[in-house]
Amino acid sequence: MLTEVRIYPVGVVRVADGAVCIEIFKAYREAMLGLEGFSHIHVLFWFHENDTAELRRTLQVHPRKDPSNPLTGVFATHSPMRPNLIGLTRCRIMGIEESRILIDAIDARDGSPVIDIRCFIPDAQPLAEVRLPKWV
Amino acid sequence: MLTEVRIYPVGVVRVADGAVCIEIFKAYREAMLGLEGFSHIHVLFWFHENDTAELRRTLQVHPRKDPSNPLTGVFATHSPMRPNLIGLTRCRIMGIEESRILIDAIDARDGSPVIDIRCFIPDAQPLAEVRLPKWV
Repeated sequence: MLTEVRIYPVGVVRVADGAVCIEIFKAYREAMLGLEGFSHIHVLFWFHENDTAELRRTLQVHPRKDPSNPLTGVFATHSPMRPNLIGLTRCRIMGIEESRILIDAIDARDGSPVIDIRCFIPDAQPLAEVRLPKWV
Repeated sequence: MLTEVRIYPVGVVRVADGAVCIEIFKAYREAMLGLEGFSHIHVLFWFHENDTAELRRTLQVHPRKDPSNPLTGVFATHSPMRPNLIGLTRCRIMGIEESRILIDAIDARDGSPVIDIRCFIPDAQPLAEVRLPKWV
């Protein structure tokens, strides 16, 4: 059983003056071929500001930092504190310029390492019977 | 700039006799609190069988292994060959038994390390103007 896997960032989130883009490192640029055919992508990034042993040990939070929400395991939230600090956001592609993917918005900070980009393919049919807890 | 991040698996995919579950390691069990309120989760796992330097250098593929599909960058696909071998699947929760999350199906193999679980919250409204390439 693997006890550790190594992730090498493939790019970085850049936020400046309201414009948001993902800068893909040169070594990975070929992996962008065909992205222009999609309107949306899933971006996986690293919550680098939380990369401390203590924050990675945080297993329960009050969702949305609201103490009136019930104490909840981080797997049942999108909290930026979690054992593996992976953020996942669906973004709209606004344009592609060489190694940059311009996007509408992302809940990452300037400088957040990007660890994967995946094309977004919506469900062919709406999902049946989705259940959510009250705090959502 | 980070050049490497370390991921510690939080569980493992178990597939046996048509039943599929995620076994969360004891150290991370508290992070499951509240999962029972959701019908669906996103599971992030590691394509451990592809964890070789050569496969991680594969940046372009023919989607769905079909040579009639155009050569495409892996960021514009869900290929299990990619620089960081992260699989992402939405699963329906069929039940929760102590440290096990029973799910309907997953495109991972028995023994695939699980690196994160996130509650699935659907869009409040259907996404406007989704564009996809022909091969999808």
